[in-house]
Amino acid sequence: MADYIEPIEKLIREFCKLPGVGAKTAQRYALTVLSMTEQEAAEFAAALTDAKQKVHICSVCGNYTDRDPCRICAARDRSVICVVQEAKDVMAIERLGEYHGVYHVLGGVLSPLKGVGIEDLRMAQLFKRLTADVKEVILATDTSAEGEATATYIARFVKQYGIKVTRLAQGISIGSELQYADEVTLSRAFANRREV
Amino acid sequence: MADYIEPIEKLIREFCKLPGVGAKTAQRYALTVLSMTEQEAAEFAAALTDAKQKVHICSVCGNYTDRDPCRICAARDRSVICVVQEAKDVMAIERLGEYHGVYHVLGGVLSPLKGVGIEDLRMAQLFKRLTADVKEVILATDTSAEGEATATYIARFVKQYGIKVTRLAQGISIGSELQYADEVTLSRAFANRREV
Repeated sequence: MADYIEPIEKLIREFCKLPGVGAKTAQRYALTVLSMTEQEAAEFAAALTDAKQKVHICSVCGNYTDRDPCRICAARDRSVICVVQEAKDVMAIERLGEYHGVYHVLGGVLSPLKGVGIEDLRMAQLFKRLTADVKEVILATDTSAEGEATATYIARFVKQYGIKVTRLAQGISIGSELQYADEVTLSRAFANRREV
Repeated sequence: MADYIEPIEKLIREFCKLPGVGAKTAQRYALTVLSMTEQEAAEFAAALTDAKQKVHICSVCGNYTDRDPCRICAARDRSVICVVQEAKDVMAIERLGEYHGVYHVLGGVLSPLKGVGIEDLRMAQLFKRLTADVKEVILATDTSAEGEATATYIARFVKQYGIKVTRLAQGISIGSELQYADEVTLSRAFANRREV
């Protein structure tokens, strides 16, 4: 890319930092920016710095917020805590519009292989929140081996307080064909079958 | 997306303006920006505004440049002009590192259906460049119907000046299987066959 002029080359390098963006896609993005008006490009740049400067981590739940505590912690039913791995999981659940409790973002999952231990996650902050007001902790970590292990660890701890612990249902995806379900999913769907 | 906080929502909207980026990809990009350091985000924003402010259109060839005339127009063999549709085509040819002439970026192709006429392209600027120094005009527009028509139009005009006009070779792509070549390509490959 020695023949690109420097400002374009720099912009391409920046776009390459985004997940899943290679040199060709970054070039397309950069050319799109060049075809914007100066004001549009300035607004894009302002959105980047604004997001970074105004968005922080909620000291209670660990989710992204522009005030502390966040809107969800401030206004919602604090007797139910839904534990998730990442902020994007909060976004996915919020899109449903069905959950009215609060969240706790761990910032990852326990992973001995990757060297992620209890002290690397927002685990102590979660356990501090287990006051008498809390009626239920919903474990919504991923169904990966590490997500499961993390859920099991939290469940064991939370149960000591006599608080109800639930895990999101696991089974065959809605709209998918039985024949294409993987073996673990199918086996779990059998084990967790319900009377209708 | 009503539950996103405003600065994140705004950043997602900005990323959605990039080609081929939907809501989910934009969200991934936005979360990546949030996970950057403040300095990294500031550099990204600066790259955006810098590219827009420092990059202009070369008054001679129409390519993107940060000086006028551009490095290519200033330093290279001006007796050969390669005519392309867009600046990204210049980038593709420059990557080869084999072409040593100059370019002319049309900014599109003739398209009666889309209402693009001769006056909408940098056609007059091209014809103005046809001085006695010019020995060859290479037509490197796309092989689409519109690209072909544009090439034919330019060829007819340039030949009046007694200047050699060439078109990039068309045929079967290198490394592809004959059976998968489309009919037009295969037919043209037959017509343009060469003695070996």
